[in-house]
Amino acid sequence: MDWRARLLRLDGLMPALDEHGGLLWGTLADCPPEAELVFLGLLDGRPCFAPVPMHGADGPAYAQPQVWQAMQTLSPADLAIYGGARSLVDWHARHRFCARCGGGTSLVKGGWQRDCDGCGAQHFPRTDPVTIMLVEHADRLLLGRQPRFPPRMFSALAGFVEPGETIEEAVAREVLEEAGVRVRRVRYLSSQPWPFPSQLMIGCHAIAQDDALTIDTTELEEARWFTRAELLEARAAGPEGTGDLIFPRSFAIAHHLVTWWLDR
Amino acid sequence: MDWRARLLRLDGLMPALDEHGGLLWGTLADCPPEAELVFLGLLDGRPCFAPVPMHGADGPAYAQPQVWQAMQTLSPADLAIYGGARSLVDWHARHRFCARCGGGTSLVKGGWQRDCDGCGAQHFPRTDPVTIMLVEHADRLLLGRQPRFPPRMFSALAGFVEPGETIEEAVAREVLEEAGVRVRRVRYLSSQPWPFPSQLMIGCHAIAQDDALTIDTTELEEARWFTRAELLEARAAGPEGTGDLIFPRSFAIAHHLVTWWLDR
Repeated sequence: MDWRARLLRLDGLMPALDEHGGLLWGTLADCPPEAELVFLGLLDGRPCFAPVPMHGADGPAYAQPQVWQAMQTLSPADLAIYGGARSLVDWHARHRFCARCGGGTSLVKGGWQRDCDGCGAQHFPRTDPVTIMLVEHADRLLLGRQPRFPPRMFSALAGFVEPGETIEEAVAREVLEEAGVRVRRVRYLSSQPWPFPSQLMIGCHAIAQDDALTIDTTELEEARWFTRAELLEARAAGPEGTGDLIFPRSFAIAHHLVTWWLDR
Repeated sequence: MDWRARLLRLDGLMPALDEHGGLLWGTLADCPPEAELVFLGLLDGRPCFAPVPMHGADGPAYAQPQVWQAMQTLSPADLAIYGGARSLVDWHARHRFCARCGGGTSLVKGGWQRDCDGCGAQHFPRTDPVTIMLVEHADRLLLGRQPRFPPRMFSALAGFVEPGETIEEAVAREVLEEAGVRVRRVRYLSSQPWPFPSQLMIGCHAIAQDDALTIDTTELEEARWFTRAELLEARAAGPEGTGDLIFPRSFAIAHHLVTWWLDR
C-alpha cells in the first residue's frame, strides 16, 4: 500500500465534506477491503483514488437535494475532482455485468476499463454528449422549464446528441422537437462536464427564424422568451430570483452561457 | 405490417449495395421473424427500419476493407443513414444483457432504448465524444499515424473526451499525451458522427507552443509537422497520395479539417 496515496471520502456517491464545505480525503486504510478502487490521477504529486460504491445512482440527481447543496459549496477545483470521480465510480457500480454475455466484469487499468470475466469483452466508461443552447430572437432568449425544476427556475433547452448527427444538427432537432422553433446559424460557445451521471455539456448559440412556440409538454412544462432586462434583473436577484424567474445556478453551464449573452 | 415501411438491407453490419453503390432497401417481409427492428425515422414520408444482426462489431472497423470500400461509394445522404443505422444496430447487438444485473434485455421505444427484463434498468444507445485536432506551429500542421493505418496515411490526432473534462481540456491533454506538445487557443471548428462504433468527432484547432515532439509510441507510430506545400501536393495527388503522404479520406472529418486549414 502506498502510504502517500489519498482516498476520496464518499458516502455512496455523496462527497464527505469538511467544515469548510471542501472535499474530505483519507488514506487507502479507510477503504473497505472488498471495494474496487478507481485511480483519479496525481494531485500535488500524490496518487488519488476513489472507491466504487455498492450501488450506482438509482434515481435522477435532482431527487437528491444534498447533492445540489454540496455542488454549491465546493470550490471549482474540488467540483472538478468530485464530478470526474462521481462519473467514474457510478459507471463502475452500474456495470458489474457484461452487456454482451451477461457474465461478471472486473475493474482493470485503474478503473478506466472493465473486462468481462467470461467472454473477454472490454467495456469503457461512457460520457454522453449533450447539446445545450441559447436560442435568440429579437434580443430575447428562449428558456424552458422541465417539470422536475424548482418553481420559477428556467434554463437553456438541452438534449442528447443522437447517433448519426452532428452537434449543429442535434441543436436544430432538439429546439424543433421541444419548442417547435426552427433555428439557423448554430455556433459552439463552450463545454462543461456534468456528472449526473456522466455528460459532456456542449454549449451553443442559435438564431430562431421566428418566435412562435409549440411546446412538447412531455419534455418541457413551459418555455418562454425572456428579455435582456428580465434576465439581468433575475441574475442580480441572486439565488432567490425575482417573482418570475430564478437564474440558472452558477455551477451549471447555462449560467455561464446566459451570462456570456448578457455581457457580450 | 405497414406495407409502406422500408427495411435497410444489411448483411450483418455491412450495407447491401445496388449496382450504383447506393443503399439497398427491402420491405419488412425481408426481415427474419426473430430479428429485432430499429426505427430509423421517416424518409420521404415512409417509416424506415434496420434489423439488429446476430452479432455486433467484433473487431475494429479498419480490419474490414469492404466497409471502407462502401464508405467511398455511398452518397452523403446514404452515408448518414447507414452510419446512424449501423451505430444503433451494433449497439443493440452488443447490449442484449443488463450491465447492472446480468439479466436479459429487450428492445423498446423503436430501438432508442433497451429495458432489463429482470431489474427493469433502462439502457440507452451510447455515442462517445472524441476530439480530433489540427495542431498548428509556424504554418505547419501536426499529423500522426496510428500503427493500424495504411502505409503513408497520416491524420489529425484524436482521442476520447474523458469523464470530468471539457472539450478544450481533452484536446490539450491528448496532444500532450500523444505528442508531448503543449497547446493554447483551442477552438472548435466542426463535428461529424462516425459509426465505428458510435462516435461524435469534435473537430478543433489549436496552436502549439513549440514544435518539439515526444511521441507516445503505444498510441502513435509516427507524428510529423507537414508544410502547407506538402499537404497541398498530397491532396492534389488524390487517393494514391505522394511518396510520403496520403491525404485523409474524404469521408473522414480530418479531410475537411485539413482542407479548411489549407483553403482559409
